[in-house]
Amino acid sequence: MPKVVDHNERRTRIAEALMRVAGERGLEAVSLRHVAAEAGVTSGMVQHYFRTKDEMMRFAIEVVRERGEARLAEATARLGPDPTPRALLRTIVAELLPVDEPRRVDGRVTLAFFAYTAVRPEVAKALRADTATMVGGVAEQIRAGGPRPGVDPELAAVALLALMEGLGIYLLGGHYTAEMALAALDAHLDTIFA
Amino acid sequence: MPKVVDHNERRTRIAEALMRVAGERGLEAVSLRHVAAEAGVTSGMVQHYFRTKDEMMRFAIEVVRERGEARLAEATARLGPDPTPRALLRTIVAELLPVDEPRRVDGRVTLAFFAYTAVRPEVAKALRADTATMVGGVAEQIRAGGPRPGVDPELAAVALLALMEGLGIYLLGGHYTAEMALAALDAHLDTIFA
Repeated sequence: MPKVVDHNERRTRIAEALMRVAGERGLEAVSLRHVAAEAGVTSGMVQHYFRTKDEMMRFAIEVVRERGEARLAEATARLGPDPTPRALLRTIVAELLPVDEPRRVDGRVTLAFFAYTAVRPEVAKALRADTATMVGGVAEQIRAGGPRPGVDPELAAVALLALMEGLGIYLLGGHYTAEMALAALDAHLDTIFA
Repeated sequence: MPKVVDHNERRTRIAEALMRVAGERGLEAVSLRHVAAEAGVTSGMVQHYFRTKDEMMRFAIEVVRERGEARLAEATARLGPDPTPRALLRTIVAELLPVDEPRRVDGRVTLAFFAYTAVRPEVAKALRADTATMVGGVAEQIRAGGPRPGVDPELAAVALLALMEGLGIYLLGGHYTAEMALAALDAHLDTIFA
């Protein structure tokens, strides 16, 4: 099925070009033409994947999500069978923090996407179900991991996800080192788990 | 001194116009011309306050900072003399969360600014000293407020500020209600203070 192979290769090529230009000049400033030039393809070929700014933003965040999921799958596999809930949550958050250049590129795209959706409630709406699912999943891990007395798993999950996004912002701005951010994460996990 | 009065009035007028258009279409998409039209002044008059995109971003974040400081001064005054460190920190974070429309406008501008600086390390650099000062100030309050055993005031300060930014992102996207975010903040403060 050579056509399918072509399609996947081309999609990856365009996705990588988009990430490179977005990582350099900011996702908001990227045009279809920039991506085509960077990928070495025609604008028409790029339009097969996105035609409008909205579609480009959605394509970009989809690519970031796929990369994040691939990283998480690898990292959780390295944890071996039956990791503790704390180890699992630590791995997930640490893997998603922008502590190296590939993750920083993805982090910049995510941040640009958040800024974009903050003024477009109809786009933001689509993300809410994802957040609710994530909060539920994290709360379940907290419940399973033996939280300290008085810890509310749902509220602790909300706080942990917010901590992750906030540390991401500060890391992208170079305000903290990776070590500092991870130490803050570990100290925070200490307050959740007994 | 009529000239000084004019200048302040005009600055406020331009700042408010900038915030309105930025709140609607996103700071990144705003041009000098948009701001001039919204303020009902000439482009030349706007150029007195900012001439480039960089200068506009800095002007916008400066306006947001001034508004935030005014809110904090009012809110901490309402706390009365000698508030507990916990009450003080709670008030500061809660006042800065985007829980109503004026704060959401400021929050959107802040988020756009973070996204903008994430691809401009030289602009981000200027913010690092502010972050270090904030972390130091928050850590001092945590130390003074009697932290729980095992709590590292610096790391807890890093986490609290990250929590604030992260809750802000989720609030701007409408993922959580104000009540939910404030409950997560209070639960988080429970883990810091005895």
